[in-house]
Amino acid sequence: MTSVRQTPPPASSGRRGRPGYDLESVLRVAVKLFNDRGYDGTSMEDLSRKLGITKSAIYHHVSSKQELLRLAVDRALDGLFAVVDEAEQVDGRAVERLEYLVRGSVTVLVDRLPFVTLLLRVRGNTKVERAALARRREFDKIVSELVRAAENEGDIRPDIDPAVTARLLFGMVNSLIEWYRPRRGSDPTDLADAVAKIAFDGIRT
Amino acid sequence: MTSVRQTPPPASSGRRGRPGYDLESVLRVAVKLFNDRGYDGTSMEDLSRKLGITKSAIYHHVSSKQELLRLAVDRALDGLFAVVDEAEQVDGRAVERLEYLVRGSVTVLVDRLPFVTLLLRVRGNTKVERAALARRREFDKIVSELVRAAENEGDIRPDIDPAVTARLLFGMVNSLIEWYRPRRGSDPTDLADAVAKIAFDGIRT
Repeated sequence: MTSVRQTPPPASSGRRGRPGYDLESVLRVAVKLFNDRGYDGTSMEDLSRKLGITKSAIYHHVSSKQELLRLAVDRALDGLFAVVDEAEQVDGRAVERLEYLVRGSVTVLVDRLPFVTLLLRVRGNTKVERAALARRREFDKIVSELVRAAENEGDIRPDIDPAVTARLLFGMVNSLIEWYRPRRGSDPTDLADAVAKIAFDGIRT
Repeated sequence: MTSVRQTPPPASSGRRGRPGYDLESVLRVAVKLFNDRGYDGTSMEDLSRKLGITKSAIYHHVSSKQELLRLAVDRALDGLFAVVDEAEQVDGRAVERLEYLVRGSVTVLVDRLPFVTLLLRVRGNTKVERAALARRREFDKIVSELVRAAENEGDIRPDIDPAVTARLLFGMVNSLIEWYRPRRGSDPTDLADAVAKIAFDGIRT
């Protein structure tokens, strides 16, 4: 099989006997296309053209477009749920676990920006999308329960419905996908600090 | 020309001699379709099928799909810029004008939810979309300058870049399109209160 390359492929990451793209680079290019054109609006033909390799060469790595989507949204979700697990280990008050979750989520968003962007745009038309939405709802429920627990401990303002507080809190966090673009030398920790300060203590002096 | 109706049209709003849909109801159905399937993914054929009227009957009201988009995003943008004008009339400190702008924007989002949803998903592939993005950038600049002015007056925390503060502030406001669904008896003022309290004073007690 001949693979015509329109763009120079990244160096092989060592997949034996198959120079050029590995699964990771195929996935990254696919996620960029999905984000630019929409998942439904991107075909394996488009991906093949973008990579400059044949569709067969892509199917060497993944079985379908849907598998690429699953790998991508799981990359985002696994990162977020790892933070949930870590947050649960934080001793002390619920508000401290909540703050850990907010900061950790910002870091995951920054580190896995294209993957989280795709996740947050998923609409639920396919099995993979519905599974991703179910895991998102599970995450939202964890946040909401943590806000409620922190409110019960007297650390979170009681004058707003905890579900609304949780939505607004992660509305702010998730807005990063709309405007944050990594710059050389910028530190995700600074951004996590900014989000945590504003969310917990407000923008007013 | 015969117009075959698959769904009962709303009562005529008085457009003389043409019972059935008026421009406003065509626009509302179009915006719902654009939000559900994407602007690019919706054809005038789809709209005609959804409305149960011929394409010619639609072209009686608007010249093109792009004109529907323009009417829709302008509905959102005109609402937001009306709030900007009102905010500028607020005497006193910049932080008060900023709070007015936040509360007013929440109200516009709630009142014009489908229109603002469409606006916030616009990507800039057509002339109308690029014009909408330009007006959005203008709005963002106004917010950013207001945050900077309030910071200079000592009312907004100086430890975060005003541009980042502005982004996070409206990230929270705009997140409403993702989760807010109007319920009977719910009051937009309560939601504007919740957003303003959390944004300005934080979720912590």
